[in-house]
Amino acid sequence: MPQKVRIALDAMGGDVGPSVVVPGAAISLKRHPDSEFLMVGDSALIRAQLELHPALKAVSKVVHADIAISMEEKPSQALRRGRKSSSMWLAIDAVKKGEADVAISAGNTGALMAMARLNLRMLPGIDRPAITAVWPTLRGESIVLDVGASIGGDADHLVLLAIMGSAMARVLFDIERPTVGLLNIGVEEIKGVEAVRGAAEILRGMNLPQFDFIGFVEGDGIGKGAADVIVTEGFSGNIALKAAEGTARQIGEYLREAMSRTWRSKLGYLLARTSFKALRDKMDPGKVNGGVFLGLNGVVIKSHGGTDAEGFASAVDVGYDMVRYDLLTKINQTLNRDGQGLSIVPTAQEAVS
Amino acid sequence: MPQKVRIALDAMGGDVGPSVVVPGAAISLKRHPDSEFLMVGDSALIRAQLELHPALKAVSKVVHADIAISMEEKPSQALRRGRKSSSMWLAIDAVKKGEADVAISAGNTGALMAMARLNLRMLPGIDRPAITAVWPTLRGESIVLDVGASIGGDADHLVLLAIMGSAMARVLFDIERPTVGLLNIGVEEIKGVEAVRGAAEILRGMNLPQFDFIGFVEGDGIGKGAADVIVTEGFSGNIALKAAEGTARQIGEYLREAMSRTWRSKLGYLLARTSFKALRDKMDPGKVNGGVFLGLNGVVIKSHGGTDAEGFASAVDVGYDMVRYDLLTKINQTLNRDGQGLSIVPTAQEAVS
Repeated sequence: MPQKVRIALDAMGGDVGPSVVVPGAAISLKRHPDSEFLMVGDSALIRAQLELHPALKAVSKVVHADIAISMEEKPSQALRRGRKSSSMWLAIDAVKKGEADVAISAGNTGALMAMARLNLRMLPGIDRPAITAVWPTLRGESIVLDVGASIGGDADHLVLLAIMGSAMARVLFDIERPTVGLLNIGVEEIKGVEAVRGAAEILRGMNLPQFDFIGFVEGDGIGKGAADVIVTEGFSGNIALKAAEGTARQIGEYLREAMSRTWRSKLGYLLARTSFKALRDKMDPGKVNGGVFLGLNGVVIKSHGGTDAEGFASAVDVGYDMVRYDLLTKINQTLNRDGQGLSIVPTAQEAVS
Repeated sequence: MPQKVRIALDAMGGDVGPSVVVPGAAISLKRHPDSEFLMVGDSALIRAQLELHPALKAVSKVVHADIAISMEEKPSQALRRGRKSSSMWLAIDAVKKGEADVAISAGNTGALMAMARLNLRMLPGIDRPAITAVWPTLRGESIVLDVGASIGGDADHLVLLAIMGSAMARVLFDIERPTVGLLNIGVEEIKGVEAVRGAAEILRGMNLPQFDFIGFVEGDGIGKGAADVIVTEGFSGNIALKAAEGTARQIGEYLREAMSRTWRSKLGYLLARTSFKALRDKMDPGKVNGGVFLGLNGVVIKSHGGTDAEGFASAVDVGYDMVRYDLLTKINQTLNRDGQGLSIVPTAQEAVS
């Protein structure tokens, strides 16, 4: 048996805190019995929850923290108030100190990103962090990044996203050479996405063994599963994700209305109920939980704030996988092939000259 | 009875040409008997179709054109081959010459935009064109622009989009003071969308009688109907639209699968069939047909290339409305309030200083 996977949890993160975080960890532990936990937050609340989950209690340490970052705080406020003292900071700090392999929080995204960046710092050669989404597609799942950590970015930035995203795909989907596509728009006459076109040239030129660059993908290609990894800068990535989530919820509403309108449709709904439930579970990109922060010198996972225990468990599962299958090593291998360090820079200059 | 609405149709546009365009016009004519048509294209094919629709034939002129622009041609090729001679060009040219009030084509978007821009030119004060989408929402419909005509753009460009989009909303939805939101992403710490923040400042400062600026809207706010008009630059607008379309189709697939899996769900589907059909019709933002090109010195409507007669009719309806309720006058009124010309420029400078 290899070493245990040591998971630090910000127990106060999310809309409800320990009453979701602790049961969520218990669910994930059943799937991955080689996990152990460091739970940071109000120790009384955490211990009360742990009493209900003896198996989890047996593999958990509790670290008390007085301060919990709220969902409304701005990152700058959160840093002022909670640096070195909040449950969020201390969970990340456990990764920094080597006491945990991954930190997971359902708290305030901006604060989590700011603290992670300040405490763990970026990987050598990476300029800015990215957040990933795991997107349900007609072919399974794809990784989409960046869904909102950094706005804009040049061709090199997009290439770094491709490298990090493909490393994550190798870990999460267990594919040796995932396909990577660049999000673009299809209207031919358009000039102006220099960064996207430049990144395409660089990626074609690199022809790395770690992933297969397939070219451009349009917005409707994501749901088709056109590539295992879809790369775009954070503004359009966030807009794409939210627009898809909004559409899924909207259709859910329509469905509910349609099914309650006539006796025929009501009866139809009752008969097809199980299928409907399965449908709802897979239709919303927002429901796949566990956004990985990429580019940091450590693994940090963001869970949705409004998730339930099952959802939080899936974020813990993602964290487990990232550690067990060596996300950081895989990113670094691609970045530093041949031990030459970041080899994209000269190629990038060729491409734009 | 006011003057007739004179509609020029590129009869060769779209995947099938006259056999969709002519019946589509016939459907729209029933709804708007005060329309008349100029049909440009292969006159033999058009006349054959018109024989099947005597009421339409009575109000249609046919103009022969040898050249039809294909869906695959690049705008530059289309211009070289079809300038002054193609059905697409001649339909636009009828607007230019004052022989028609609006041109409608289901042809190649890039070519249509290039020809419209070259022939009609931009409205004074407008830098670049925009394409709108009419997006189904939980509250009805919203106008989203730009969905792909121009990439990027500064704060002033976004303000112009807000002005044009709100004029279109006044026409299409018959609302006196539509609400306008700027598409943005919610992550607090992000610096970098200067254009979006700058546009918000300008729009707040303008406080125009023609629309009500409500601030930022996230991607999932579009489907909720958070504002009558949602403004963003063309790259993210196109990504949002396509991502939503992709999600709608994906859920349609899931639904089909789910409904065919067990006898219970099959029976359920049969019972709820009518509701399902209604659902499908409204769930796809890509199905609302009739993208208006904004910013041109004339009204040009783009229909989907793969549409059927009913879909093309809805594009004709949009064209009719834009003329009947004076889109161009309404845009110009807002642009030139107090006869001062474009008054946003000084405000814009204040905002960025």
